[in-house]
Amino acid sequence: MISARGYAAQNAKSPLAPFQFERREPGARDVQIEILFCGVCHSDLHQARNEWGGSLYPMVPGHEIVGRVVRVGAEVQKFKAGDLAGVGCMVDSCRTCGSCKEGLEQYCEAGSTLTYNAKERDGQTLTQGGYSDAIVVDEAFVLKIPANLDLAGAAPLLCAGITTYSPLRHWKVKPGQRIGVVGLGGLGHMGVKLARAMGAQVVVFSHTDRKKQDALRLGAHEVVVSSNPDEMAAQAGRFDFILDTVSAQHDINAYLNLLRRDGTVVLVGAPEKPLPVNAFSLLAGRKGLFGSGIGGIQETQEMLDFCAQHGIVSDIELIPIQQINEAYERLLKGDVKYRFVIDMKSLR
Amino acid sequence: MISARGYAAQNAKSPLAPFQFERREPGARDVQIEILFCGVCHSDLHQARNEWGGSLYPMVPGHEIVGRVVRVGAEVQKFKAGDLAGVGCMVDSCRTCGSCKEGLEQYCEAGSTLTYNAKERDGQTLTQGGYSDAIVVDEAFVLKIPANLDLAGAAPLLCAGITTYSPLRHWKVKPGQRIGVVGLGGLGHMGVKLARAMGAQVVVFSHTDRKKQDALRLGAHEVVVSSNPDEMAAQAGRFDFILDTVSAQHDINAYLNLLRRDGTVVLVGAPEKPLPVNAFSLLAGRKGLFGSGIGGIQETQEMLDFCAQHGIVSDIELIPIQQINEAYERLLKGDVKYRFVIDMKSLR
Repeated sequence: MISARGYAAQNAKSPLAPFQFERREPGARDVQIEILFCGVCHSDLHQARNEWGGSLYPMVPGHEIVGRVVRVGAEVQKFKAGDLAGVGCMVDSCRTCGSCKEGLEQYCEAGSTLTYNAKERDGQTLTQGGYSDAIVVDEAFVLKIPANLDLAGAAPLLCAGITTYSPLRHWKVKPGQRIGVVGLGGLGHMGVKLARAMGAQVVVFSHTDRKKQDALRLGAHEVVVSSNPDEMAAQAGRFDFILDTVSAQHDINAYLNLLRRDGTVVLVGAPEKPLPVNAFSLLAGRKGLFGSGIGGIQETQEMLDFCAQHGIVSDIELIPIQQINEAYERLLKGDVKYRFVIDMKSLR
Repeated sequence: MISARGYAAQNAKSPLAPFQFERREPGARDVQIEILFCGVCHSDLHQARNEWGGSLYPMVPGHEIVGRVVRVGAEVQKFKAGDLAGVGCMVDSCRTCGSCKEGLEQYCEAGSTLTYNAKERDGQTLTQGGYSDAIVVDEAFVLKIPANLDLAGAAPLLCAGITTYSPLRHWKVKPGQRIGVVGLGGLGHMGVKLARAMGAQVVVFSHTDRKKQDALRLGAHEVVVSSNPDEMAAQAGRFDFILDTVSAQHDINAYLNLLRRDGTVVLVGAPEKPLPVNAFSLLAGRKGLFGSGIGGIQETQEMLDFCAQHGIVSDIELIPIQQINEAYERLLKGDVKYRFVIDMKSLR
């Protein structure tokens, strides 16, 4: 076994603390990665604190992983020692169901194997995430990180990037199309950059005007203060597509009302409580409310290559792992621009 | 002006009662119709009692109208005296917006002119519906009723029929596809007949097993008792499309969970209170919740022709207009199989 070090939650109430554990020896198709950077996703916090229920401890969170390959199994074809590599939200899936065969492993009908807070396909071994110095993953779930990307800024692409890229592609956002992005956090700021790079006219909805200049800098063409009824009314019926990245409770009907006929609001944030949806908001214009979760491996690679082509990474604040608990508290206050990334050097 | 007789609500609290009023003389493009039958839609009751707010009185409800043409204007091309004719939920629209030009007058961006409880395009004259002996409508909003259809049974096609036909077509329900219909009332029973005629495998979801035999008789292949958790669990992940016709409060997440990846629940009923939607229900499988409202004029004609081809009409209970208030009370109890239709002979 490989000895690994990281930070783990031992239960829902304890802060993250240093943790020593073991990774499997790389099998024939495995890639062993020295982790250099790991992004801090809001879902790390939700799961560490068992806010979604069913958390498995000890838990090493982290699914926005960038590192360098140190060893590969005998049958590995895509990677060799020294290569840059990334790992996102999944480390395996059944590989045989319809979704897996279509390259949509995130919707694996048997359930994909999440990078942490899950069990390997053996149904026993806990998976452990990227707040650690090493990880071993089947090459089918390892991404190539383009060399021209800033590595720390690239880490959040593995979750925040693909989570926003996938719906923009699936709903075929086109150049010139006017689209909305609700919320300007870790997900939202990636949505703005990606949609802008796809050629869309990007309108950001933010609760206050505090982030207005920042939104424009990130690529937004327009910023609407969602708490201002006049500003919202002026947007009514003007969108085919709105990407809603807010995971706090909010009025989804206000955004359904901004859609044109046959338009769609896509949720990528996951509010804990159900969202009240007014049936009339949907009926009047054949409107839809969808959800979308991360993306498949092939699409994640496509997203990374798209980001390399357009010079896109996440805006980040680099922290040593010793500050992770403080970072969680700041995350709760929305006090980060726009993603914390752990510099894994701090672990050594 | 043409003198018309009907039944009207004078305010939200009063029962419907005999009412004398005037229709306009037919203009160059108008068709004057002697009303023979009018279906009783649940929305008639909602509006007569101002349950959706903003009701306009006096109100003659009714938007499932079948009758015979008695007179046409000089420029009318599609109809002549003696023809059968139908009028549904709309009698006009702006005719110039994108939706109108696409034949989707129900989504007219300026607002279509509803058959009753609305104002004509002049912004002043109240429209009055089909619980009456005569109506005058621009030929562009008058449908041809195929001669082989039972006229009383055909009346509900103008609302219940098109409301279920339109989403089945829009979401491209195909032969062999397994689809769900939630609720077996006026809308649901039409959904079953139409989906069956389109070649789908039809699964009806009903709160109890009381309507099971009836559902099978109407064309369902399978009936699931939605209050039975085991029966519901057995359906998980098995549907691409579920038509939800229930206008009472119900758990929409239970149906989202029955969808396959990329599947859609389409609401055609309009519950008064917002429906709580669990974001995870949507995220896990890129699922969607849509609404759909009636259908355009061209699609309504297509639906009528489809019904004629397949011998489909509504199952009805024919009543004299003098029993309309009693019918409303029975409607509230779900005590009708499956649509009340007023025989307008009773008015003479």
